[in-house]
Amino acid sequence: MSKVRLGIVGLGNMGATHAANILAGKVPRLELTAVADADPTKAARFPQAKTFVDTDAMIASGLIDALVIATPHFSHTTLGIKALQAGLHVMVEKPISVHKADAERLIAAYTNKRQVFAAMFNQRTDHYYLKIRELIRSGELGEVRRVNWIITNWFRTETYYDSGGWRATWAGEGGGVLLNQSPHNLDLFQWIFGMPQRVRAHCKFGRYHDIEVEDDVTAYVELPNGATGVFITSTGEAPGTNRLEIAAERGKVVYENDRLAFTRNKVPMSKFSRTATTGFAQPETENVPLAVTDHGGQHLEILQNFTAAILDGVPLVSPAVEGIHSVELANAMLLSAWTNETITLPLDGKRYERLLLEKIAGSTRKKKTVVNSNAGDDFAKSFAR
Amino acid sequence: MSKVRLGIVGLGNMGATHAANILAGKVPRLELTAVADADPTKAARFPQAKTFVDTDAMIASGLIDALVIATPHFSHTTLGIKALQAGLHVMVEKPISVHKADAERLIAAYTNKRQVFAAMFNQRTDHYYLKIRELIRSGELGEVRRVNWIITNWFRTETYYDSGGWRATWAGEGGGVLLNQSPHNLDLFQWIFGMPQRVRAHCKFGRYHDIEVEDDVTAYVELPNGATGVFITSTGEAPGTNRLEIAAERGKVVYENDRLAFTRNKVPMSKFSRTATTGFAQPETENVPLAVTDHGGQHLEILQNFTAAILDGVPLVSPAVEGIHSVELANAMLLSAWTNETITLPLDGKRYERLLLEKIAGSTRKKKTVVNSNAGDDFAKSFAR
Repeated sequence: MSKVRLGIVGLGNMGATHAANILAGKVPRLELTAVADADPTKAARFPQAKTFVDTDAMIASGLIDALVIATPHFSHTTLGIKALQAGLHVMVEKPISVHKADAERLIAAYTNKRQVFAAMFNQRTDHYYLKIRELIRSGELGEVRRVNWIITNWFRTETYYDSGGWRATWAGEGGGVLLNQSPHNLDLFQWIFGMPQRVRAHCKFGRYHDIEVEDDVTAYVELPNGATGVFITSTGEAPGTNRLEIAAERGKVVYENDRLAFTRNKVPMSKFSRTATTGFAQPETENVPLAVTDHGGQHLEILQNFTAAILDGVPLVSPAVEGIHSVELANAMLLSAWTNETITLPLDGKRYERLLLEKIAGSTRKKKTVVNSNAGDDFAKSFAR
Repeated sequence: MSKVRLGIVGLGNMGATHAANILAGKVPRLELTAVADADPTKAARFPQAKTFVDTDAMIASGLIDALVIATPHFSHTTLGIKALQAGLHVMVEKPISVHKADAERLIAAYTNKRQVFAAMFNQRTDHYYLKIRELIRSGELGEVRRVNWIITNWFRTETYYDSGGWRATWAGEGGGVLLNQSPHNLDLFQWIFGMPQRVRAHCKFGRYHDIEVEDDVTAYVELPNGATGVFITSTGEAPGTNRLEIAAERGKVVYENDRLAFTRNKVPMSKFSRTATTGFAQPETENVPLAVTDHGGQHLEILQNFTAAILDGVPLVSPAVEGIHSVELANAMLLSAWTNETITLPLDGKRYERLLLEKIAGSTRKKKTVVNSNAGDDFAKSFAR
């Protein structure tokens, strides 16, 4: 096989972007042979591919080796299971599922490891985050003591939420900013720092928009080594912030405004504290130049990596099985807010699913839908960095 | 009266600094006529003034019109009440008391409003904080939606905590970083943003030092208008951070590294969200130059203001009665951590006092004391900005 024949299901903002990129030849060795959407007018925009309304028919068509799933969240699980069982390679958009129990079901269907099963965590290709991860994993930063990530540059207008009836409803998305925008950041968080042990979150539901799900979150987390963290996200703030600060034994790292600053302690802070002979002394520091300027290949790089994993067996940048972690973090934050509890991980997935189903059953949401409201909108500029 | 005759009680780091400044003529019209300390060798360093071991004797001596109280925290209340009842003008170091019930007792003794009763919240003189407060109070920033204050540049070594037997014990200080270092920031917080309505705090006790009280705090707060906030402080981090970010309707303000940045929205964010016709649009912004470069007169300015309030009747920059707010905030954070509860303000001061007394009774703290360990140490550099 010299090329991968790809199908895309779900031709909303994200699926249509992938389709256009592939048709424009931006992902060598990846060929768009089929597309599917319940709305035939959306598929009709891609006449170069065979168009389907019925995803099952596309999966069974023999026209595709691999499937990108870019549908509304809940169907990631059901379509993912079908595609895996049909022997396809699968790339699932984030979140891989809406809740942990579904993510477990999806991952359980991944039994043939010769299939490639990836998730669209494109921000893992960003050289800034790669560098931060390397500083920690190499021991260069020493033990992490505190993390503060303000990631509020996901501003969305009311029109955005009105643009699809499924948006920002418990039944349609299973959550708000934590399930739609922030999965990237939750994935990066666990990818860089590991999974927290405890989560205490304050979620505000419909704080900035006329929606029933959360559009503003402040979460406190504790990592297994005792490090503390704060994660703040919102779709209501403009101008937003993306600032990640890490206080560690060997210094401080701050990422903000396309700049990565590393202030290194000549003596690790706790060792200095124990050995200093005066009360107000501080470790000497030096600024370490980090020449990072590149945000990486993002979606295209993930699609290239997916293709190379299928054709050449290279390791995946973002295996779908790792996608359960960001789902679990998002779930834990919502559960903490719903119950006013500190959630100890691992999360009880069955309990969460039960409570989410109650939210869905109790939803009285009638949304007005503004058709095509995103026409002319610059979706490409919407990816927060 | 053309000059104020001042006594200082407590000649530790802070009291001795005030004494030296006044003796050096740095506060016109303020004359140091008496000093008192339980340790006579400390008073003996200021032979220009009459020295006392017994504070009651100094209060009754007729040598002073005003008293600065710079003793360990618990005695702020008792000495403050005595001095007020003796008709003296009083300047009390922060915190005005260790807990809310004590602060109420102290304030209740302030019955003669011709006396001047001030607190040493010197950071209220900082032009950066004054400017931020003005931006909010003038309406220039619009409604505040979120605050993130990381104030961890209060690094202290083990030697610092070993330098006095009273330090960092429930009996000696009634708390740690919240009672000793951060009262300044808690005061500024309430002075700028008003008092929170709810507090959920995560305090770590002896995380970085061999002490029984908190040296690391992450607190989530909610203001009456629904604004959310995070306040993080620590004496264990180096290099520390002092970064205050404010997300408001009319823009974002960030104060960090002696720089105050104001990014103004041409349309307030919530109004923009409601009226935009596309989903991913954002309000246009402009950078507003704020030419602030001055940290103000700090301790000297507060002493000058105290003197002018006595002699000329000018209003106080930091009235002691306002000092109850930072005490209440510190208490609420500790109470939240002790009880694992979200604390609704106003705090139940009696309950807090009872629990604090339990902590004191249960303390098994035996501290080694390193005498004069701060000799040669640069205390003046220890004031976090």
